[in-house]
Amino acid sequence: MIHSSAIVDPNSKIGLNVKIGPNCIIYENAIIGDNTIIDAFCEIGVPTELADGKLLVIGGGSHIRSHSIFYEGSSFGERLVTGHRVTVRENTVAGKNLQIGTLSDFQGDCHIGDYVRTHSNVHIGKHSKVDSYVWIFPYVVLTNDPHPPSNTQMGVVVKEYAVIATMSVVLPGVVVNEHSLVGAHSLVNRDVPEGMVVAGHPAKIVCEASEIKLKGTTESAYPWPSHFTRGYPEALVSEWALKFSR
Amino acid sequence: MIHSSAIVDPNSKIGLNVKIGPNCIIYENAIIGDNTIIDAFCEIGVPTELADGKLLVIGGGSHIRSHSIFYEGSSFGERLVTGHRVTVRENTVAGKNLQIGTLSDFQGDCHIGDYVRTHSNVHIGKHSKVDSYVWIFPYVVLTNDPHPPSNTQMGVVVKEYAVIATMSVVLPGVVVNEHSLVGAHSLVNRDVPEGMVVAGHPAKIVCEASEIKLKGTTESAYPWPSHFTRGYPEALVSEWALKFSR
Amino acid sequence: MIHSSAIVDPNSKIGLNVKIGPNCIIYENAIIGDNTIIDAFCEIGVPTELADGKLLVIGGGSHIRSHSIFYEGSSFGERLVTGHRVTVRENTVAGKNLQIGTLSDFQGDCHIGDYVRTHSNVHIGKHSKVDSYVWIFPYVVLTNDPHPPSNTQMGVVVKEYAVIATMSVVLPGVVVNEHSLVGAHSLVNRDVPEGMVVAGHPAKIVCEASEIKLKGTTESAYPWPSHFTRGYPEALVSEWALKFSR
Repeated sequence: MIHSSAIVDPNSKIGLNVKIGPNCIIYENAIIGDNTIIDAFCEIGVPTELADGKLLVIGGGSHIRSHSIFYEGSSFGERLVTGHRVTVRENTVAGKNLQIGTLSDFQGDCHIGDYVRTHSNVHIGKHSKVDSYVWIFPYVVLTNDPHPPSNTQMGVVVKEYAVIATMSVVLPGVVVNEHSLVGAHSLVNRDVPEGMVVAGHPAKIVCEASEIKLKGTTESAYPWPSHFTRGYPEALVSEWALKFSR
Repeated sequence: MIHSSAIVDPNSKIGLNVKIGPNCIIYENAIIGDNTIIDAFCEIGVPTELADGKLLVIGGGSHIRSHSIFYEGSSFGERLVTGHRVTVRENTVAGKNLQIGTLSDFQGDCHIGDYVRTHSNVHIGKHSKVDSYVWIFPYVVLTNDPHPPSNTQMGVVVKEYAVIATMSVVLPGVVVNEHSLVGAHSLVNRDVPEGMVVAGHPAKIVCEASEIKLKGTTESAYPWPSHFTRGYPEALVSEWALKFSR
Repeated sequence: MIHSSAIVDPNSKIGLNVKIGPNCIIYENAIIGDNTIIDAFCEIGVPTELADGKLLVIGGGSHIRSHSIFYEGSSFGERLVTGHRVTVRENTVAGKNLQIGTLSDFQGDCHIGDYVRTHSNVHIGKHSKVDSYVWIFPYVVLTNDPHPPSNTQMGVVVKEYAVIATMSVVLPGVVVNEHSLVGAHSLVNRDVPEGMVVAGHPAKIVCEASEIKLKGTTESAYPWPSHFTRGYPEALVSEWALKFSR
C-alpha cells in the first residue's frame, strides 16, 4: 500500500492498512494511524526546531489529500480529512474528525476541538483556539498580532457551533462566542455575543441568529445542527436532535 | 513526450503530440486532447464518487501548468490554459479558451462559457454559472450557501462581459449582469444591473461603466472589448470591433 | 546533496554546498548561490519567453521551501527565505533577505528592496515597487490595472518601513509612504501619508502610527523597529537602536 516512489523514513511509524501515494515523503517523526490514506505529493512530519522533537500524530481512518504538508509536533484525532495543498505547522493539537479545506494554512500552536470544519483557503493564525463544531468558510483569516509586526500574540477564540462566513478577518484576541454567525466579508474587531449575527466593516450586531430563516421556509437556520447533519456520525446527530429540536 | 517519471493509467486516452511532465499522474478516466501540454506534478482525472464514473475531457491545444489537479467528471473545450496549483472538481462543463489563474479553485457542478478568464486565487463555488467573456480578478469568491452551513445551494450567475475586481465576494443567488463592473473589495448582496458599476460594502451603484475613462484619455474603458483584445483570436477581435466600436 | 530523484539541467549553475530535495526540477537558466537549500517538489528557473533568456539568480544562503516555483529572469540577493508553494514570475529584482510567505504569488516585473517580509498568501501584482523593511500580511493584494481588463499597468509603491495588514487591497498607482500602517481588511484608493494609519473602506486616516501603543504599555508600537528585531542581522539592529530609540 506504499507506492514505490514514496520516501518513507524507516523510523516513522505507519499503522496497519495505510495507503501512501506516489512521491510522498514521510519523515522520521511521523506516526500515522491505521486505515489512513495519504495521497500523492504529501510531506508528513516535516522537521522543525520549533517542535522540540515532538512527534506528528495522525489519527486512524484519516484521509490527507494530495500536495499537503504537515510539520512534526502536532497531533490530530481520528478521521482527519483534508483537501489539497493544506499546510499545517507544528504544536497544534486537534480533536477528531477535523476537516481542513483545500489550500488552508494552519500556522501552528493552535487548539482545535472535535468536528471542526474549514472550507478552502482558511488561514488559522498561531495561538488560535477553535472549539468543537465550528464552521469557517473560504478566505477567512484569524489574526494574532495587535500591532504588526510585534512579539505580542493574542490568538482568536471561536466557540462551539459558531460560524464565520467567507472572507472575514477576526482581529487579535477577539472571542467569537457560541452559536454566533459572522457575515461574509466582515472585519470583526470586538467580541461577538453568543447567538448573535454580526456583519460589516467593522462588524456590528445585525440580529439574533435564530431570526434567520431557511430559504423559503419559516424555520430558523440557526442553530444549524437543527437541520444540517451531513457528514457527522449518527450518535452525534441523535444528540443534536434532542438538543436543538425545534 | 511522456516523461519517464509520469504515471499514466493505460486506460486513459492521450491525444497526439501531448506532452506530460515529470511526476504527473494521469488517471484512468482522463481524455486529453491533441497538442496539449501538462506540466510537472499535475494530477489529471482524480477519481471521485461524485462524478458517477464520468470522464474528464481536456480539449486539444490546452496547457495545464504545474501542480494542478483536475477531477474526473468535468469537460473543457479546446485551448484551456491554467496557472499553477489550480484545483478543479467534478461535474463542471466549460467552453473553449478558459484561462484559470494560479491557485484558483473551481468547486465543481459549474457552467463556464467560452473565453472566460480568472486571475490568481479565484474561488468559484459549486453551482456557479459564468457566461462567456467574463473576467474575474484575484481573490474573488463566488459563494452558494445563503445560511451556512446548510443543504441549500444557490449558485451565482455572472453574465457576458461582466468584470469582478479583486477580493470581492458575491453572495448566493446574485446575478451579475452583462457588461457590469464590481469594484475591488466589494460585498455584492443583490443583483448588479446591466452596464453598471457597483462597489462598496454592501455594494451600491456608483455610475454607468461607460462613464469610466481610460487613464489619460476621454475614451470609455467599458465595454472593455473596445480596447482590450490581448489573447483573443482574430475572428473574435474583428467581431468585437464592429460590435463595440466607439 | 542533490537528491537522486531531482532533475537538474546540466547547464544550470549550482553553487557549493547546495542541497536539492526530492523531485525538484532545476532548469537550464538557474544560478543557485552557495549554501542554499531547495526543498522537495520545487521548480527553479521555469522557462518563459517573457524573460528574454535572462537567468534566474538565487543568492547564497537561501532556503526555498517545498512546492515553490521560480521562473527564469528574476534575481534575488542572499538569504532569500520562502514558505511553501510560493510562485515568483520573471523579471523581478529583489534585494537581500527577502522572506516570502507560504502561497504568496509575485507576478513579475517588480522591484523589491532588502529585508522585505510577506506573510502567507500575499499577491504582489506586476510592476509593484516594494522598498526595504516593508511588512505585508496575509491575503494582501497589490493591484495594477485601474480599469480591468486593460493594457494600462500602474504598479503600487510601498515605501520603507510601511506595514500593510491582513486582507487589504491597494489600488493601482497608490503610494503607501514610509512608516505608515494600513489597517486590516482595508481598501486603499489614495496615497497613504508618511507615518499615518489608514483603515476602512475606502481607507481613511485614523491617527498617527506613533499614537498606537504596545499592548499594556505606554510605548509606541511604531516605528516598529524600535521594539521588533527578530530575524534581522545584528548590524541592522544596532543601526535601528540609534535611529529609532525612544
